[in-house]
Amino acid sequence: MNEIRLIPIEGIAEIEAGDDLGEIIADAVSGLVESGDVLVVTHKVVSKAEGRTVPIGDEAEYRALVVSEAQDIIRRRGDLVITRTRHGFICANAGVDRSNTPEGTAVLLPVDPDRSAHRLRSLIEQKTGTSVAVVVSDTFGRPWRRGVVDVAIGVSGLPAIVDLRGTIDGSGRELEVTEIAVVDEIAAAADLVMGKADRIPVAIVRGLALSGEGRGADLVRPAEEDMFR
Amino acid sequence: MNEIRLIPIEGIAEIEAGDDLGEIIADAVSGLVESGDVLVVTHKVVSKAEGRTVPIGDEAEYRALVVSEAQDIIRRRGDLVITRTRHGFICANAGVDRSNTPEGTAVLLPVDPDRSAHRLRSLIEQKTGTSVAVVVSDTFGRPWRRGVVDVAIGVSGLPAIVDLRGTIDGSGRELEVTEIAVVDEIAAAADLVMGKADRIPVAIVRGLALSGEGRGADLVRPAEEDMFR
Repeated sequence: MNEIRLIPIEGIAEIEAGDDLGEIIADAVSGLVESGDVLVVTHKVVSKAEGRTVPIGDEAEYRALVVSEAQDIIRRRGDLVITRTRHGFICANAGVDRSNTPEGTAVLLPVDPDRSAHRLRSLIEQKTGTSVAVVVSDTFGRPWRRGVVDVAIGVSGLPAIVDLRGTIDGSGRELEVTEIAVVDEIAAAADLVMGKADRIPVAIVRGLALSGEGRGADLVRPAEEDMFR
Repeated sequence: MNEIRLIPIEGIAEIEAGDDLGEIIADAVSGLVESGDVLVVTHKVVSKAEGRTVPIGDEAEYRALVVSEAQDIIRRRGDLVITRTRHGFICANAGVDRSNTPEGTAVLLPVDPDRSAHRLRSLIEQKTGTSVAVVVSDTFGRPWRRGVVDVAIGVSGLPAIVDLRGTIDGSGRELEVTEIAVVDEIAAAADLVMGKADRIPVAIVRGLALSGEGRGADLVRPAEEDMFR
């Protein structure tokens, strides 16, 4: 195993609708990015660039927006609503976010985070002459465990899940745990150099040796396999 | 934000009951470890050193062991049992693990993973003359999302949760998401250089700037706040 480096990308200004985020990121990582790097980008800047910011008035309007963004309501307790989004992700408030966005606005999830990741990747590769992967991340709570962690919602250029089925462990036995959500581990790792209060929407993860093509949808556990809906 | 490095620690041989794991890790990181480093250690080697390996015969015996290790059964479907352990963690099969352990045996969770982390930390600090933190990790599945990720079950020398309550975001508003499960993100990051099939039970995470003292129990969401039991 090689060492892995988590490199925060500073100097990215506030993103607004219509900004060419691929170009902005390419400029920010210019001279730094290398082929094989994974660029983790928080969905917040992706959504903002894609015009997914909406005005909200009072709390009631926010609540209505959450419901309209949700495909399904999974649980509800007081103001907390656990939803399934159109993408299939189960998260609080349908991913509608009011932090790091101007007062009176909220940011929705990208319509198609895999497509967003793919588009960013193409632009960054063109501009920098490298071959990279892109992960679009969001911050999710979890049942049973306190605190939030960053996870992947969009992927381009690397697998979402690494399947070790048939792999032999150190004792010569086949591994029981076969599917590693490696792209969620990458998103969580990148968050360590991003910080919620800092304006660092992009990090490079360098040193991974992964090949394959995954999608955010690979991370959605099919309803028939899920015991907690 | 500084860069963070994830450094796999190679050269740790198979661990057996009674081995002085603190000394073994201290030897393996000697000349490499620095004050401020976080050492992530998979619970597997901790449990083995602590003699938490038990013989199991057939599948029925394994199933009985899982039930006896569980405090509660949360869900059951076929052979898959989702349990609450005595520590309060909700995970598959009460954490009883049959991979990377000799045929005919299973490895239980440490009795007190925080104490294990604390003991390892003291020994490593003494032997290496550094000031470090230790995280004991395990591999958990999640509801709703496919694939497993590594999480923390024991902590010594750093916070489990970072509370950003009252922190002002880039737009001058108070952050909504306030509790980051930073130690779970650290465990997930470390897994990127461990690999399930490789015998790399320890990784250094270098460059974190965290202070405080947390416990694995900080990560357990109290039943009354949990909507998915």
